[in-house]
Amino acid sequence: MADVSLCLPLTRESVQSAYDFIRANVHKTPVLTSRTLNGIASTQQATSPDCAKPSIRLFFKCENYQKIGAFKARGAFHALLRLFHHLGEDEVRRRGVVTHSSGNHAQALAFAAHTYNVPAHIVMPSISTASKIAGTKSHGANVVFSGSTSEEREAVVAQVIRDTGAILVPPYDHPDIILGQGTAALEFEEKVGEMQSTPLDAVITPLGGGGLLSGTATYFAPTSTRVFGAEPSFQGADDGRRGLEAGKRVESIKTLTIADGLRTPVGLIPWTVISDREKVAGLYSVSEDQIKEAMKLVLERMKVVIEPSAAVPLAVVLFNEEFRKLVEREAGEKGWDIGVIFSGGNTTVEAIAKLFS
Amino acid sequence: MADVSLCLPLTRESVQSAYDFIRANVHKTPVLTSRTLNGIASTQQATSPDCAKPSIRLFFKCENYQKIGAFKARGAFHALLRLFHHLGEDEVRRRGVVTHSSGNHAQALAFAAHTYNVPAHIVMPSISTASKIAGTKSHGANVVFSGSTSEEREAVVAQVIRDTGAILVPPYDHPDIILGQGTAALEFEEKVGEMQSTPLDAVITPLGGGGLLSGTATYFAPTSTRVFGAEPSFQGADDGRRGLEAGKRVESIKTLTIADGLRTPVGLIPWTVISDREKVAGLYSVSEDQIKEAMKLVLERMKVVIEPSAAVPLAVVLFNEEFRKLVEREAGEKGWDIGVIFSGGNTTVEAIAKLFS
Repeated sequence: MADVSLCLPLTRESVQSAYDFIRANVHKTPVLTSRTLNGIASTQQATSPDCAKPSIRLFFKCENYQKIGAFKARGAFHALLRLFHHLGEDEVRRRGVVTHSSGNHAQALAFAAHTYNVPAHIVMPSISTASKIAGTKSHGANVVFSGSTSEEREAVVAQVIRDTGAILVPPYDHPDIILGQGTAALEFEEKVGEMQSTPLDAVITPLGGGGLLSGTATYFAPTSTRVFGAEPSFQGADDGRRGLEAGKRVESIKTLTIADGLRTPVGLIPWTVISDREKVAGLYSVSEDQIKEAMKLVLERMKVVIEPSAAVPLAVVLFNEEFRKLVEREAGEKGWDIGVIFSGGNTTVEAIAKLFS
Repeated sequence: MADVSLCLPLTRESVQSAYDFIRANVHKTPVLTSRTLNGIASTQQATSPDCAKPSIRLFFKCENYQKIGAFKARGAFHALLRLFHHLGEDEVRRRGVVTHSSGNHAQALAFAAHTYNVPAHIVMPSISTASKIAGTKSHGANVVFSGSTSEEREAVVAQVIRDTGAILVPPYDHPDIILGQGTAALEFEEKVGEMQSTPLDAVITPLGGGGLLSGTATYFAPTSTRVFGAEPSFQGADDGRRGLEAGKRVESIKTLTIADGLRTPVGLIPWTVISDREKVAGLYSVSEDQIKEAMKLVLERMKVVIEPSAAVPLAVVLFNEEFRKLVEREAGEKGWDIGVIFSGGNTTVEAIAKLFS
C-alpha cells in the first residue's frame, strides 16, 4: 500500500481529488426516496408519551447498486490508482496486490486489479462458503486459503508478500481507502443538490472498520451536514460507541452479528476521524431484531435488496430512541432531511431465508 | 364496469388514449439493464451441442416499482376514470366499486378508489393472510369475506351489488382494464427509444388472466416488436399455451404454482387478442424451479425484489430451450433486444424464506 506519508491529508479537497482518480471506474449510484418509509420514520414507535416523534425525510444512497454490489469498489480503485501514481503501473503490475478478507473488500480489490490487469492474491479462510470463493475467483483473483483466526490469515499474507512482492491493500485502515469511500458522500451531496435547494441535515452510515464513516465525515466536515455512525450492539459489535464512551479505541471484538460486514473493530486511522466530535456527531447502535426489521421494510416496501450491514443505519433512524429524540429536539417541527447510505447488497436468497424463517 | 359496447376498440391508439386518462396517477417506472444477466442469457445452458446459444440484450420494465407494487394500478385507474367519464363522478361515488380478488388487483382498485374518494368493496376469502387483509384495508377499502371457491366469492359479490349498487371492476376480462395495462408497454417503448436508436425486437410478459399480455400485444401490434407470453407449467397453469395448441380457450384451471398471480385461466376478451398470431407471437412455459432460479438471479444480481409471477418471463428467456432456439434462429449473430416486464414486487421476506429454505 502507498506509504501513509505520501497520502493526501484527510480533507474534503482530498476526497474531491480521489473522485477525479476513480470516477471513470465506479457507478454514480442512484439516490432513492420512499414516502412509506418517511411515514414510518415520522411516526411514534409506541404510544407512550416518552417516545420521540421526529419529522424525518429520508434519502437513500444506493451503493448496493455499485460495482461488485458495495461501496468497497471506491476505496479499492482509489488505492490501486494511487499505487500506480506513486510506483508506476509496471511496478504494481509486476508485484501484484494482496489482501485478507472474505467479504466485499476482497471482491472489490479483485475486480479493480482485474480491470487493470494486476495480479491479485486474496487470502480467505478455507471454511469460506463456496459462493464467496467462486465470486472472488470470477474476478480473476488468485485465492489463497488460510486458517480462520486473524493470526493465521496474516501469516499467509506475509508469506504471499515474501513469495511475490505483492503490495498489501488493507480493507479500511489507510487514507487512500478512506478518501475513496468518501466519494460516495460527494455524489450523495451532489445528487441531493439536484433534487432540492437545501442540503441534507444529516447523513448516517454503517460503522465496521470505519472506512465509509470516516470518509463520509471527512467530506462533510466543513459543511452544515452532520454525520452519524450506526453499529450493531450484538456481542459488543458497538465497539465504536463503547470506545467513545471510554475515551479509547476498542482494539478487538468478537461478534457474530448478522451484519457480517461490521464484525471488525474500528481501525486506527478511521478512529482519528470518528473520535473527533467536530466530524462525527454521534454513534448509535441497534439490536439484531431491529436490523432485521429495517431490512424487511427495505425489501418489502422499497423492493430493494440490501445486505444486513446496510440496514443498520435505517434501523437507527427508525428504532433508536436516543437518536430519534435528538432529531426531534434539534430539528423541531421543520424536521430533518436524513441521508442513509445503503452500503451494499451482497446477500443470497438462502441467507435471507435463514434470517426470516 | 363500463358497458363493453361503450369501450374503445383494442388498438394502439386506444392505449394512447388510456395513457392520457391515467398518466397523472401512475409512476413512470424505470427501465433497467444488467450486463450480468445479458451474459447469462447469451450463454448456452448446457454444453450439449443441441443447446441454443442466442445473443440477448435484456431491458427490464420495473412495474414492481409501480404504485401498490404492480402494473395492476394502471388498469384500475383507467377503469375507474372511464366510469367517471361514462356515468359521472357523483354516480360512481354514490354507488361505489366492487371486485373479488385477494391479490394485486384488489390493492390497486382499493387504492384508485381511495384516491378519488369512491367507496370500494373487496371480496376476499376469509382464509386470506392477515397481511393481505391489512394491506387492502390500509387503502380504505371495505373488506367483505367469502368462502374460497369462485362460486362462493361471486355469490358474495352479487350480494354486495344488490345491497349497495356497487359497480363490478373485474381484474382482467374487460377492455378498459386491458387498455390500462397496455400503458406499461407504451412507456417501455418510449424509454427504450431514449436509450437507443433501435426498437425492442421482442417483449415478453407474464400470462395469467391476460390483461397485461393482451394490452401489451395490442399496443405493439402495428410495430416490428414481437410480443410473447410466459406461463408456469405447474399443474396445468400453462392454460394459454394448451389452449393455443387445442385451438380453444381453456376455461378453468386449478394450480398452486408459486407464481400466485398466474393461477387463473386466460379471460374471454384477452383471449381474442392472445389467440391472434398477428398479435402474440408465441406462449412459453417454465417449471417452478426455473421460476425460482430466475427470481434468485434478479434478487442477487440486480438487487431488485420481484414476486414469483414477475420472474416467469425471464425464466422463459433463460431456460426455455424452444424460446431460446427461436431467438437464435430469428436473430442470428446480431441478437435480439428483449424487453421483459417485471409485473410486480409484492412479496414478503417470509414468503422468500419459504421458497428458498
